Amino acid sequence: MAKAVASDVKVLGSWTSPVVMRPRIALNIKSVDYEFLQEDLGSKSELLLKSNPVYKKVPVLIHNDKPVSESMIIVQYVDETFTGPSILPADAYERALARFWAVYVDDKWFGSLRELAAGKTDAEKATALEGATSGLAPLEEAFEKLSKGKGFFGGDTIGYLDIALGSCLGWLRVTEKLSGMSIIDETKLPNIYAWSERFCSDPAVKELMPDTEKLFEFAKTLFAKMSGAAAAPPPK
Amino acid sequence: MAKAVASDVKVLGSWTSPVVMRPRIALNIKSVDYEFLQEDLGSKSELLLKSNPVYKKVPVLIHNDKPVSESMIIVQYVDETFTGPSILPADAYERALARFWAVYVDDKWFGSLRELAAGKTDAEKATALEGATSGLAPLEEAFEKLSKGKGFFGGDTIGYLDIALGSCLGWLRVTEKLSGMSIIDETKLPNIYAWSERFCSDPAVKELMPDTEKLFEFAKTLFAKMSGAAAAPPPK
Repeated sequence: MAKAVASDVKVLGSWTSPVVMRPRIALNIKSVDYEFLQEDLGSKSELLLKSNPVYKKVPVLIHNDKPVSESMIIVQYVDETFTGPSILPADAYERALARFWAVYVDDKWFGSLRELAAGKTDAEKATALEGATSGLAPLEEAFEKLSKGKGFFGGDTIGYLDIALGSCLGWLRVTEKLSGMSIIDETKLPNIYAWSERFCSDPAVKELMPDTEKLFEFAKTLFAKMSGAAAAPPPK
Repeated sequence: MAKAVASDVKVLGSWTSPVVMRPRIALNIKSVDYEFLQEDLGSKSELLLKSNPVYKKVPVLIHNDKPVSESMIIVQYVDETFTGPSILPADAYERALARFWAVYVDDKWFGSLRELAAGKTDAEKATALEGATSGLAPLEEAFEKLSKGKGFFGGDTIGYLDIALGSCLGWLRVTEKLSGMSIIDETKLPNIYAWSERFCSDPAVKELMPDTEKLFEFAKTLFAKMSGAAAAPPPK
């Protein structure tokens, strides 16, 4: 992708983090060149601690030495700062809807993915699967309205809500693999299924979507550490 | 306050809810006339259930029959839709900072108020007080930078972050009264202390700030119900 000459832009992040993909996709959409600084989350850099003293979390965007934190706030900042295709809809009401569903993704839906990935018993996993799938149903419905028959929530091109939900697809695939269960079922969620294929192959996204096998290995190690177990649950 | 002729604007809400104040303050700032529909949260209206089917929560703004939910998303919608003084800062970086701190208020700070109000033992209350007070320290510091020596986070006038934090002041005062403890200490948090006085007496806010005694009685009944106790803890 051709990159415009950019001002000084850095992203502090980690390749394993879904929320770190968000500012990176936004910067790709705007064709802004940036430096990606991979953080070691076990030993955070001075720059991260200084740039996001409140949460000490990635992602942080640093633009001309000024830090911005919180992934979807960064996406809005990128949209409002750089020229290129719009990320937020042009209409105020549509912007409100995109913001509403983006908050829904983080506050209501993403947690069920985590529960599914961490679920140990079949009963726990079944409950979490139900949450993860039924949590996508309102988005399946919203897609019809927001996309206006086009390929993305944002219409013809990837927008704010596409980024919010789409950034979770790498972990969603890993969660499907870990649990042996299908979350985005083609028959139950046809809009989301087709959208997810389009999203992952979009030029602004493709290079950033983590390799499922690699993320799967990372996830196994992570969950093994979290549960204090010697070995991760075997893949199904 | 002189009200402009407005299009069809309704707010579904409750006088006891801090987040319901947010769209109302925003509409006052824009001099937009609106109809306030008081919800009985024990028996929600069909209009509320239909307008916010995902959360079934107040506030909902209905503008020309189109509903918007989530208080700070409504504030942005109001700012972007109606003419009048700006609520979000004009500068993209300052907007990002205002959004960041507004999220902080809801995600990190407000919970400690709830814990303080609900705290039963002195130890619980002391821990929650420490959280509520120390949680304001970053905002005390941020005030210097964001206000640029003016009276509000938004500068000369009430802005986005003023609304986010200021809407909590009614419950903060009730919590101080319930716990017998001072959260906004004039010596420890001089900026926030002086700001809170200015905020509550602002013309866009004054009529909306709930009467402390009335809210205090409501809170006592609420906490008594929540704890299943026959009587609320006595005021100190």
